[in-house]
Amino acid sequence: MILTQTKNSFKEPRITLVGAGPGDAELISLKGVRILKSADVVLYDALVNSELLEFARENAIKVFVGKRSGDHSYSQEAVNKLMIDYALNYGHVVRLKGGDPFVFGRGFEELEMAASYSIPAEVVPGISSSISVPALQGIPLTHRGASESFWVITGTTSSGEISKDLYAAAKSNATVVVLMGIKRLKDIADIFIAEGKHRLPAAVIQNGTMENEKLVVATAGTIFESAQDQKIDSPALIVFGEVVGLHSLFQPIKAFYEFSEQE
Amino acid sequence: MILTQTKNSFKEPRITLVGAGPGDAELISLKGVRILKSADVVLYDALVNSELLEFARENAIKVFVGKRSGDHSYSQEAVNKLMIDYALNYGHVVRLKGGDPFVFGRGFEELEMAASYSIPAEVVPGISSSISVPALQGIPLTHRGASESFWVITGTTSSGEISKDLYAAAKSNATVVVLMGIKRLKDIADIFIAEGKHRLPAAVIQNGTMENEKLVVATAGTIFESAQDQKIDSPALIVFGEVVGLHSLFQPIKAFYEFSEQE
Repeated sequence: MILTQTKNSFKEPRITLVGAGPGDAELISLKGVRILKSADVVLYDALVNSELLEFARENAIKVFVGKRSGDHSYSQEAVNKLMIDYALNYGHVVRLKGGDPFVFGRGFEELEMAASYSIPAEVVPGISSSISVPALQGIPLTHRGASESFWVITGTTSSGEISKDLYAAAKSNATVVVLMGIKRLKDIADIFIAEGKHRLPAAVIQNGTMENEKLVVATAGTIFESAQDQKIDSPALIVFGEVVGLHSLFQPIKAFYEFSEQE
Repeated sequence: MILTQTKNSFKEPRITLVGAGPGDAELISLKGVRILKSADVVLYDALVNSELLEFARENAIKVFVGKRSGDHSYSQEAVNKLMIDYALNYGHVVRLKGGDPFVFGRGFEELEMAASYSIPAEVVPGISSSISVPALQGIPLTHRGASESFWVITGTTSSGEISKDLYAAAKSNATVVVLMGIKRLKDIADIFIAEGKHRLPAAVIQNGTMENEKLVVATAGTIFESAQDQKIDSPALIVFGEVVGLHSLFQPIKAFYEFSEQE
């Protein structure tokens, strides 16, 4: 008996990076869902809402490739290799990533990897937590009279150091959003304090858009203590800027400062 | 005959700001679509893809409140007033805004307006063009070794001046994205040139994610001339940063500089 491979059984390798959004499963795009439905394999990260996997076909292969704190699951190199292997052997691989694939998501490295194997690849953007998580807490990153710009910075660079961009950001008038910086909150807040901005409104949001979301509103001078009191842990983002002062929780802090100045 | 208002005919006023995404109708979120389907009134901006209106009920009231260049349709005050009037008289108003409602969208002013009338209001974030339009052209705003942060700035402040934040941004290592700045492209590029960054990769993207999209890749020193050659007009965004150098169109420019340096 001779087994012949029919045209139907061979699937062209193909990779799509899909942004899953900030956590709430309803914040994925229509296009993201359409692409997920056509996936043969889904490689998904730790920050992806697992409800989204239900959009994929039941017999699609679903592989968790995320890193959770203290856990050494897959290195980026291992994820890249898996992605290529699955595409060559199974067809359409969807790389489902928290937030947006190009905001500290190493998405471009994955595109380069796909290109080096001549595998067609495309990107479906996602709603970045950098913008949407503060927004859903009522903190707009821009607001007339309070901020003409926002600056999004990683708290942890590839070398493990605090990004030098944070020192420039602390001098600027931009709203500053720090992702993946919660473990270095004290050092980061100190950069703003060193610029004389201990009274600058600051917020920390853990598990944004999820049921177990936590918000802490304080100032650059008090945010580290306040976050410790509330036992804030990763994943969490930090916002520094006058726009945080628009939040209702900041009003008593503002009143306190105004009162102390009258004394 | 006495007319009595039945419970069914009175609808509670309610306002939802919904981010429509960067242009491609498929880039709205599932939640955005669900909310649109429940709208009694949709107030939509110029940059919103009109295909999205088809998600609303056929008998929903749809009102264009956008500003197009050279056209004096509605002021922000008039939009705010309309939004309140419709909510009080018709029930659920969806304010459908291009990109994300809080990225230079004046969304927070609309929330404050709703609050001043005690009308419940919420926000559904959208995919911001600041991140997604470059991404879909293959320009990641962050990339290991090229950029640890990105800074998004409005090119036109409320006073009509160039934002002071641009001067600080031109000194920084951040990827800089300028929205609503294309009419001032020359002045903006000059700020980077004044910092000795005439060779910094720069791009302009008009009508991002739409069929009539246009991309120009150059350097800070040549972007204004190149954009003029290509007759770029608004809506367009500008990107300055080493990440633009990752684009295939930048490779001949890089080769040219390397060649001139050898001479």
